[in-house]
Order: sequence, then structure tokens, then C-alpha cells
Amino acid sequence: MQDIAYGLRPTAYGNKQVMDLEGKILIDFMQGLKRSHYCGDLRIEDAGRQVVLMGWVQTRRDHGGLIFVDLRDRAGLVQVVFSPDQHEEAFKKAEGVRGEYVLAVQGAVRERPEGTANPNLATGQVEVLANELRVLNRAKTPPFYIEDNIDVDENLRLRYRYLDLRRPEMQEALILRHKAAKSARDFLDEHGFLEIETPILQKSTPEGARDYLVPSRINPGKFYALPQSPQLFKQILMVAGLDRYFQIVHCFRDEDLRADRQPEFTQIDMEMSFIDVDDIIGLSEEMIARLCREAAGLEIPLPFPRLSYKEAMDRFGSDKPDTRFGLELKDISDIASGCGFKVFASVVAGGGRVKGINAKGCASFSRKEIDDLTAYAAIYRAKGLAYFVVTEDGVKSVIAKFFTDEELKLIFERLEAEPGDLLLFVADKPDVAANALGALRQHLGERLGLIPEGLYNFVWVVDFPLLDYDQEEGRYVAMHHPFTSPREEDIALLDTNPGEVRAKAYDLVLNGVEVGGGSIRIYNRDLQEKMFATINIGPSEAAEKFGFMLEAFEYGTPPHGGIAFGFDRLIMLLAGKKTIRDVIPFPKTQSATCLMSQAPNLVVQEQLKELHIKLDLKKN
Amino acid sequence: MQDIAYGLRPTAYGNKQVMDLEGKILIDFMQGLKRSHYCGDLRIEDAGRQVVLMGWVQTRRDHGGLIFVDLRDRAGLVQVVFSPDQHEEAFKKAEGVRGEYVLAVQGAVRERPEGTANPNLATGQVEVLANELRVLNRAKTPPFYIEDNIDVDENLRLRYRYLDLRRPEMQEALILRHKAAKSARDFLDEHGFLEIETPILQKSTPEGARDYLVPSRINPGKFYALPQSPQLFKQILMVAGLDRYFQIVHCFRDEDLRADRQPEFTQIDMEMSFIDVDDIIGLSEEMIARLCREAAGLEIPLPFPRLSYKEAMDRFGSDKPDTRFGLELKDISDIASGCGFKVFASVVAGGGRVKGINAKGCASFSRKEIDDLTAYAAIYRAKGLAYFVVTEDGVKSVIAKFFTDEELKLIFERLEAEPGDLLLFVADKPDVAANALGALRQHLGERLGLIPEGLYNFVWVVDFPLLDYDQEEGRYVAMHHPFTSPREEDIALLDTNPGEVRAKAYDLVLNGVEVGGGSIRIYNRDLQEKMFATINIGPSEAAEKFGFMLEAFEYGTPPHGGIAFGFDRLIMLLAGKKTIRDVIPFPKTQSATCLMSQAPNLVVQEQLKELHIKLDLKKN
Repeated sequence: MQDIAYGLRPTAYGNKQVMDLEGKILIDFMQGLKRSHYCGDLRIEDAGRQVVLMGWVQTRRDHGGLIFVDLRDRAGLVQVVFSPDQHEEAFKKAEGVRGEYVLAVQGAVRERPEGTANPNLATGQVEVLANELRVLNRAKTPPFYIEDNIDVDENLRLRYRYLDLRRPEMQEALILRHKAAKSARDFLDEHGFLEIETPILQKSTPEGARDYLVPSRINPGKFYALPQSPQLFKQILMVAGLDRYFQIVHCFRDEDLRADRQPEFTQIDMEMSFIDVDDIIGLSEEMIARLCREAAGLEIPLPFPRLSYKEAMDRFGSDKPDTRFGLELKDISDIASGCGFKVFASVVAGGGRVKGINAKGCASFSRKEIDDLTAYAAIYRAKGLAYFVVTEDGVKSVIAKFFTDEELKLIFERLEAEPGDLLLFVADKPDVAANALGALRQHLGERLGLIPEGLYNFVWVVDFPLLDYDQEEGRYVAMHHPFTSPREEDIALLDTNPGEVRAKAYDLVLNGVEVGGGSIRIYNRDLQEKMFATINIGPSEAAEKFGFMLEAFEYGTPPHGGIAFGFDRLIMLLAGKKTIRDVIPFPKTQSATCLMSQAPNLVVQEQLKELHIKLDLKKN
Repeated sequence: MQDIAYGLRPTAYGNKQVMDLEGKILIDFMQGLKRSHYCGDLRIEDAGRQVVLMGWVQTRRDHGGLIFVDLRDRAGLVQVVFSPDQHEEAFKKAEGVRGEYVLAVQGAVRERPEGTANPNLATGQVEVLANELRVLNRAKTPPFYIEDNIDVDENLRLRYRYLDLRRPEMQEALILRHKAAKSARDFLDEHGFLEIETPILQKSTPEGARDYLVPSRINPGKFYALPQSPQLFKQILMVAGLDRYFQIVHCFRDEDLRADRQPEFTQIDMEMSFIDVDDIIGLSEEMIARLCREAAGLEIPLPFPRLSYKEAMDRFGSDKPDTRFGLELKDISDIASGCGFKVFASVVAGGGRVKGINAKGCASFSRKEIDDLTAYAAIYRAKGLAYFVVTEDGVKSVIAKFFTDEELKLIFERLEAEPGDLLLFVADKPDVAANALGALRQHLGERLGLIPEGLYNFVWVVDFPLLDYDQEEGRYVAMHHPFTSPREEDIALLDTNPGEVRAKAYDLVLNGVEVGGGSIRIYNRDLQEKMFATINIGPSEAAEKFGFMLEAFEYGTPPHGGIAFGFDRLIMLLAGKKTIRDVIPFPKTQSATCLMSQAPNLVVQEQLKELHIKLDLKKN
């Protein structure tokens, strides 16, 4: 900031420009000029037209006595030519022009001379011969090039986000994001949904992730919390009879940002009354398909396939299955249960499963490579990774000797094994076997290049278990949240076999990434009591955690349910980006700071005093 | 909450209903039924049609052996008839139905019997003969009636907001709000604006109103601030070349909520590049006119009238003039300067003004009434209120004797006085005279019933002064903010007569309420330096307050400007409400609390510890 020293530069101000005291024009005003076209929109049909363009200097080249400037705006680039013979004053001014200067150019569009057209540029058939140039602003040299596919440290891009966002690929992502939000809003409006704003200053609840807190000045010692989602309020809106609600809304979680997460993120949040699972799924997939078409030009066939949670875990070892490739999991527990390999047999005898995948053509993997796969599976708690190398001559494996030929044949059949394949097995508790092999499947799918480009595979995962048994606490806990409804036909199981109760919950998965999730809610007091009893939540605990909502539910709550879509992730996938930071205009780093504005920052003591708090910086 | 005691009620669960242990059905499930129509949408054309309705019981009446239920949903009411002869089971169930129960009804639409149509109800020509009834939920008796125009303490309404929002007038306001936002978004999208999300977790700036702060867990001792507006970010987006930005966005101010204010409020926020005042005004009024038409069915003629700040102050004594009625201020300083009434003459001699309004037909006001007006003017710092009562015989006033007949005649002419009128005068510093009489004008306009119903008078106020002279600090301060651009032709005055420089700033006023405001920004470094110098902001202070923005401005900033509309106020006026709380779904009280959810609330000690703060509740 050192070079910004106010009032030190001798300057004069006219109506039309700012001059230095020698009368040299530093900056022209725009006054009286009106942009007629975007740079990037000019085409051969515009030849002969007088235009006024305004934009940034992408490049300046001096060639053959002429000056060529590529002028850039949101729509793209166009070539502007300055000729000393035809328009001397403009030419002279153009001599002072540098990269990222802001120009207004008046001139005539003309076809480029034969042989100089640029087929890689949308405006490449034309150029603009400038007859007037105004330098609206000057610019320092940017710390990186304003162009796509730059190889620049992300922190530098975030520090100069206003320059980063000038790059076409970033602008395209934000335009896609705008179009996607518009498309969703149009769809929901046409289907009777009302966008209703819920508060950002909410009550802190002890459930879920960590809240961001906001001290109250007027209510000493009390705090607001920023919402992790509008969950309670959207259900309240159903109690209020608003029937169909949506909102594209910021949500907040004060989590450690190891994964590709942001402290604030955006949801398309919906809730409907008097509906069931199929209604929400049907409407949602229509909305998403339209959004993909209108924002990204993608045609996604409807309906999206549905997988039950059980099938997703069985076949893909994940409740977020990437269905763009095969490499599916096979269960060989039936074969393994009687085999001579004690590890397998005893796992099955103890209620576990033996599952495998067939890494086609990977028989040549080295011992080291297989060890690496074993280590990878271990991240997902697999205690080991057994393998068979299938050769023309049979099988190579240290454990092959424990299997009969018949058993080997059955296993090969089940895994569709051919010579050259590598078969990988995990024997463990059912969820560990599934998760570890599912992770290995994804890992190998990427490594082996099995995932085709350009596929957008949406899939619904439905029929999640309502409850999860928490071994440590020795009780059932809600897998989603305690307001998720069980399927009616499973209600009786709450008394007899709670683990088998299926929830009316559904997730939307795109290419292995969860992009949405929701449920039909419990709306009935008796069933809610039953649910709380099943997960050992007593009346006072329920009142403390969900107080006003439970009270509201006493006044005539309709059947209702909803869903929320992770807008950042969806846009990231549609824009072909690898991180949500590339589709969020002003993201924060992993330490939750904004490198451009330096938020968060220190505040003055009086501010804290007014808020009835003080710092507590001692190490705990 | 005492009556919510989970697991205590003996209940059984079937696939289709919840029963008590004697088999009495408590609640039916909706399963298998699909709503076919909204209650309020049925018309005579639907007679003969089988329908499935779902909604709330507005009233139940037993009459002539039949049961009549008015069933309500978001679209309105319809009468449902239960007949013991035709559908006994449904009738029997209907006997147990009470207000606000949630029902699903299957039945046939039929024309109401002759003489029983209700012309006050959109569905009043038809009724639905129920053949199946399901009680989807029961309800406690609400603490107030679910109908329009209830006379209930607002705190009770806020406490039970979910019931308050069931009232048709509240739902209509939220529907209007939804439509208005949709209309604005459609318009802006069609005009090339991109909706771009700016962060809620921002940097605290010492300017403006008080910030809400959010302690950072990851950055001990540092705080985020919730934005008072996206001002810096939207200007940054112009630097980034996004060209046209908008956002419908929550903003936050931690102020004392004396007036009709809320801690969080909603703005339609816009910014454009390469434009001037007329572009923004033209686009804005097109957007607003369309919004009024699409959301509220109002036709507002274009263009909106414009008043300069000076004219608004001269004629209406306000920069937020209510132009729905006359009662304009008249300046009689020229006449008063030479009069014998020393108070007037000396005020004019000292640079003040004498201004008056003509309260038509108010000659009969009592001394007490005039004293009350004087007290009212005193709130606005007027040191006194002089008056003339105009009668058939001349004038009655304690000060009349100080004026010549010629002076009186000129004053009467200027104020168009007739017998029966009451002329009121304030002699004071120009701004005090204008403000006090302006307030008196508004007060009398309302009291005398001069303000016609159903008028929506938009007016632009333009050409605000750029600078305001702060007597206490002995320096000029920015009237809007220090990035507001002066008019080019006034720039030279910055050196000679800063108080005369007009800003490129504009406010939109509707019926005396400011509903929008904005400006063209300074984008040029030299002019910005000049501006900072004029208001005595030095380089280090500027860097501290506006650091990253000033740095961004060095990299090629385009001419740009914008505007923000107070969405809550606009909707309040269009919905005909008296407070923005009636158009905000979940507003807070004057003590910034949510009576429904009890936010803000106490949090547990560990939460604060994680955030590196502790309470500081000592009285300062």
C-alpha cells in the first residue's frame, strides 16, 4: 500500500479528463460516450457498423506501423487497430497503453484483411478500426496472466481475487452458477414454491456441527448462531401452511476445513407439505435436469436411477456410488464360509462378509503396488487385503492352497475372472468390508482410467436405515436426524428390530459425490415420541434441543418433507472444476481466512466491551 | 412444554394409522392419497369432479344433521359437507374434528344448494361432499384466531409465528414478497446482470453502523463481521470485470432498534460498469415498475419524476419528500428580511431562512392545538413557530402588528392564503427551517387527511451535495461515502467551494419513504486522492479503512456505479403494511430477540472456550 500517497501528485481536473500540471492527460472521463456493444459479441455481420466498446487491454502489439490491441470484456475479446494515418490522435494515445488499462474505443467494425482472420476467436473474422480512444483508467502490471489454465499458486489467485475473476474460465463458472440458480428459481416458482427468507441470526443448538456464534449486544451474555441449515424454520413454514417453500441460502459450519469445505456454503433448500417420497424425488430430478440443460447445456435422461442403500453398499461399497464405471463388489461369503482359509471362514462365521473386486488386467501389479493397495484399504479400517493373480496357468496367491479347485472356480465365476486379472478381497465386518473395497474400487477406477470423461451419472440412494447402532454408547442413534420418518410398513419393527427400519430418506449422488439429501419428516406426535424413546432421548432433553419446534408441532402439522442440494458442489461438477473454491466468488482458505480482504481481523477493545465479551487467549 | 411427555401414551402403529391400545384411531396416514386440488382453487366449473383436498379446519358447524367444515390451505377456503346418510364413516370421523386439525378429504365437488352460495368466498358457489375423511393430525386450540384483522398483541403473534403466518393476509404478504423478488431477478437476468454471492463472513470495518461480530475459532483473537452491505465486494466485482452484478441479500446492523428496523434486512443490491447516472436510474425504474406490476398489480407510469436535493428541501423540507399531497413550503425570507418583526429579520440577516406552510382551513385550531404543533416542530430543533390566522376580516396573530399591510399581502399571495387558513412559519438556519417545516407538513398532511389512499408516488432525489460540513469536527465529511463521485463539471469546486459540489448520488423515495439509494463511484486514483484530501483522510487512515479495495483499484478499475433497494420497506409499502415486521417471515423484536425460537440464547462454556472468548458482564 506504500505507493498510495494521497494528494502528493500534482494534478488538475477538467470536465473531460484528469491532467498533470503540465497538461498531460492522465485519465479521460467516459462522459458523453455510451457503450454500444460488448467486445466479444462482434461478428462479421457487424462489419461497417460504428461501435463504442469499453474494456480491458488483453495485449498490445505494434506491427507494420499499426498498433493492435485485444480489448476484453465479459463477453470476450476483439482486436482493435490504431492507424497513425487514419486517426493520428487515437494512435498517439494508444502508444501509451499497457496491459489491463481500461479503454473506451469508438470505431468502425471491418472484416479482417484476407489471411489474418483468427478461427480460434469468436470475433476472429473482424477487427475495429479506432477513430477515438479514451484511456478510462491505468493499471499496474498484474502478478499473473489474465488468461485460462494459468499455473499460479492458488493463494496468489485468492489474494488478487479481482484479477483471478477476470480470467474467462472463472467468469464462465460464475455465469454458469448464475444461470443454475435462475433455472432452479424459475422451475420452483412455476411449481408453486415460494422463496421465503429464514433468519441468519438464529438460536444456537447443541446438535450437529459446530456453530458460528454472534454475541448479542442488547442481550448481555447471549449469543446468536449462524444457521447450519434452515431445517427448523423450513419445517415451521410447513406448520404455518405455506405448503411449498424454497430458498437458495447461505449456511455455516465452523468445522476444520480438511476436505473441500467452506465455512459458508450455499444450499438449494426445499420443503413441501402433503407429499411423499416419490413427489419430492420426481420434482427434484425435473429441476436438476432442467438446471443442467439451462446452465450447462447437458441433457440428462429422466428418471434418475434409484438404488437402495443396501444395493449401493453391496455393489459399490458406498452410499455415494460413482456409477460411471463397473468394478463392482462381489460377495463370496457363501463360498468362503466353508473354505480352508481360516481368516475368511471365521469372519463369515462371526457375521462378517468376504467381498472382492476384479481389477481387470492388473495381474502384473508388483508386490509393492499391492502393498500400497493394502495400505490404502487399511485407511478404511480393513485389517488385510487378500489377492489372487489370475494367470493362463491358474492362480498365483499365497492363500490359493487353502481353496479347493471347485471353490476357486466358483470365485472366478462370480468375479468374472480371466487370465491377467487381479482379484482383491476384504474379509471383515460387513460395513468395513464394503467401505474398504468401495474406496479401493474408486481408487482403482481413477488409477486405471476406467472413468469416462463427460458422463454425468445421477443416482438416487433411497431406503436408508432409520437408525444406526452406536456401539460405544450402546444405543441406537438417528442416521439422518430424529425427525426423519420411518416407512409406514416398517413402524412395527421399531419395537422388535429397530436396526431394520427403513427411513423415508433419499440422497442424490452425482459421479460419486453427494449433491443432495433429504427426507420425509415425522409430523405426528405419537410417532415422534416413539422415535425419541427408541433413541433414548427423554422429554426434557427433547424439549431443550427442539423446544419451539415440538411446541409448534402440537398445533396441526401437515405431513411434509424436503431436500437440500449442495449448490457449490453441484456447480463445481457441472463446471468441471476440482474444488468448490473455483465456483465460489470469494472463498476462504483452509484456515478460514479471506486472503483478499484479510478477514477475520482484529477488532478494537471497545467493540468487544459493547458485546460483553473479552478475549481468552490462554492455551487450554 | 410440560405436556410433551414422550413414550407415556399407550399407542399402536399400523401401516395406515396410529391407534391407542383400545384400537381407537388417533391419526390416519396420508399413504395412498394424493392431493388433486388446492381448496381455494375450486370453482363452479369443477362441479361433478372427484377431488382430494388437504388442509386445515377453519371452522366446523353442525347444521340440519350435516357437518360443515371450512377447509383451508394456502389458496383459500372451501366448504366440505359430511352427510351421515351418504357416507357414514366419514361423518362419524368428522364429529371428532376441531379447529386447525389437518384433514385429507376425498369427495365430489357440487354446486351449493340454491340460496346457500357465499358471494364473499372465491369458492362460494361450490362445496365438496366428502366420501372419505382422514385426520392427518390433531391440533391444540390456537391462542388467537387464524383470520385477518385480528386484534392481538404483536408479541403473542411473534411467539406463535407459525400460527400468525397461517392468516391469509400474512401469506399474501409473503407471496407478494416472493413475486417481487422473482420479478426483480427476471428483469435483471434479462438485462445481463449476474447474481453473484458475496460472503456473509466478512472483515470488520470501523466505518458506518455497528457491526455484528463473529469470533474465529481457527484464528484466535480475530473476528469476522456480518456485512452492513456488500458495498466493497460489489465494487471489487466491477474491478473483476463482471460488468453487471446483482444480489438479493441479507445485510446486518447492530443498531438500537427504535425505528422500524431489524438486525438483519434484505437489499436488492446492484452494480454496473461503464455507465452513468441516467443508465442506473433508467434501469432501476423499469425494474421497479415491472416489480410493482407483477407482484402487486400496480401500474406505475414511467419515468419517475426527479427532484434535485435542493428542490426537495425547498418545496417539501425533506430529502424523502412525500409527493402525494401539496402543503408545500414557501420561502418568505425576501419579504421577512426587511420586516419589523426582529426575529424574522435577524434570522435572515444571519444567513437563515423564513419558511412557511399554509394549513388550509385550520384557522379554527385552538391555542392548545397550535402549541402542540410548536412542540412538534421543536423536536426538529425549530426554536419557535410563528403563525397567522387568516380571517374574513384580515389576520389574527400576535406578530401581525410587526408587518406592513404590503408585507402581509405579499406573504398571503406567496402562500395562497384565503380566509379560514392557518399560516405557520419557522425562521431558523436553512436546514432547521426546512426540516422542521417538512416534518410539520407530513404531520399535518396525515392529520388533515390530505394523503389519498392508493397512490404510489415514486420520486428520484438527485444531485445531493457531495460533502457535508461537520461543525463539530470543523471539516467536510462525505455525505454518502467517500467513494461517491462528484459531477465532472463540479470537480473544480473541490478546491474553491467544496460545499457546492454535487454528487452523482440518487435516492428513490416512495410515498415519503426512502426505498433505494446509490451513486456513481470514484474509480480514478487521482480523484480519489483529491476526495480523501478534501475530507482530511490521510494515506495511512485510508489504507487502514479501505486497504484492499484501494489496492484493487490500482489494477484497472472501470467507471462504475450502483444502487441498493430496501426490499423490506418496498414490500411493506406495496403490501399496505405499517411495519416491516409484517413482511419479514421471522422478524426480531426491538430487543433483537426472536420470540418464537428464543434467539439469542445462552451457550455452554466450552463453546466460548473454543472461540477464545469469555463473558465480560461487569457493568462498564
